[in-house]
Amino acid sequence: MVFTGKRQHWTSWMGQPLYQKVIDTIVARIAAGELLPGGMLPSETQLAAEVGVSQGTARKALMMLEQHGILRREQGRGTFVTARTPDSSLFNFFRLRDHDGAVIRPELVDEKVVQRAATAEEQSLLFDKPDRVYEISRIRCLEGINSTVETSVVPAALFAGIENRAPLPSALYILYQQNYGCIVLKADECIVATAATPSQAKALNICEGAPLLQVERLAFDILGRPIERRRSLYRTDRFSYRVTLD
Amino acid sequence: MVFTGKRQHWTSWMGQPLYQKVIDTIVARIAAGELLPGGMLPSETQLAAEVGVSQGTARKALMMLEQHGILRREQGRGTFVTARTPDSSLFNFFRLRDHDGAVIRPELVDEKVVQRAATAEEQSLLFDKPDRVYEISRIRCLEGINSTVETSVVPAALFAGIENRAPLPSALYILYQQNYGCIVLKADECIVATAATPSQAKALNICEGAPLLQVERLAFDILGRPIERRRSLYRTDRFSYRVTLD
Repeated sequence: MVFTGKRQHWTSWMGQPLYQKVIDTIVARIAAGELLPGGMLPSETQLAAEVGVSQGTARKALMMLEQHGILRREQGRGTFVTARTPDSSLFNFFRLRDHDGAVIRPELVDEKVVQRAATAEEQSLLFDKPDRVYEISRIRCLEGINSTVETSVVPAALFAGIENRAPLPSALYILYQQNYGCIVLKADECIVATAATPSQAKALNICEGAPLLQVERLAFDILGRPIERRRSLYRTDRFSYRVTLD
Repeated sequence: MVFTGKRQHWTSWMGQPLYQKVIDTIVARIAAGELLPGGMLPSETQLAAEVGVSQGTARKALMMLEQHGILRREQGRGTFVTARTPDSSLFNFFRLRDHDGAVIRPELVDEKVVQRAATAEEQSLLFDKPDRVYEISRIRCLEGINSTVETSVVPAALFAGIENRAPLPSALYILYQQNYGCIVLKADECIVATAATPSQAKALNICEGAPLLQVERLAFDILGRPIERRRSLYRTDRFSYRVTLD
């Protein structure tokens, strides 16, 4: 496996690098609720012994998790899980707000999960050039109005059995984190205005050709791996996409 | 003047707080090219003496400029101007990219600058509840195609005489910085899909009703003051708005 992420770069010929074993262990404990936000981690020495790696490898893993805001190291005190909650994580990646800027909670209206062969584009974008992917198609409702049509595509190998978990929670990233150890930390979005197709118009109760906001997202997990391709179409007559640039 | 910014909060009854005098001095020197990126600032003591404030006030100003990424303090070495160039600043706030993600340089096609009374909405949004504003209306071209219709509204008191500088540079924030000491550091954007009006369609050579991306921006300067309201309409058939969430 040779993979070049946008931020991270690593090469491994014999499977995963050793520090990833440490990261997986910590992430699994956070995901399982064994390590809570604010909770203290074992020392580097203990961690290295538990996982069976060198202290240097344990340190590298802790540094990576710290860089990504998952852990916080305090001089002379220890290493702690930051207070990242699924909720804050969710709303960081869900940018739709009402006209007053208030957060809206989307609700699931319709859902379909299928496993299928990956397209060439999906293979080129997603982690580990997957042969098979899951396609999760959903219609979501905002304040009583069908407002989003979304299609998420994820590598089948990373999300085994996701089709048996339906109905999926409205916030997929919580599911990814809690059941598959994939913590989404970054997303690149590409936004355009487009005209509603007949099927989109029907799903959203609008006229064919009405303007829709189309957001194409590539989401990266804690290891910088592109794990989800998502295309979202939004009605923006009552809501808008908000972002802060700095 | 009582002003509550989103990030900063300060209250002053007799004009500007003293540390702002120090900030203005430093910002003016950066804007004038006297202090270059990477250049070292005078010590707190020297700065305080030059501007005629206490050392504590000079320190507060330096800390604010550091928090905003304008200065970088190095333990035991001194305080330096960070390598923020007008170019990097510009492209941080100009999010349109071509399909390969490459930066596009917009070119000015048409421009109109007028001074007029502020609307009630502009008064409520912009710094110091301005009575008068400048409205800068521009059509800009991307790779040979008229692609954006933009209207920027700024308080007249902060940008005196801007109507005499036409034609304005394509990157207004460089002008704001170099001629008015206003360094734009943050922008809140509100994005929707909309249908082209007859005048927009004419300016952009598209059909009436064609989908356009509308970006409403409120830009904040280094002091957290909302100094520009901008509405941009983009053709996104050949370009897209890109953003990274993390």
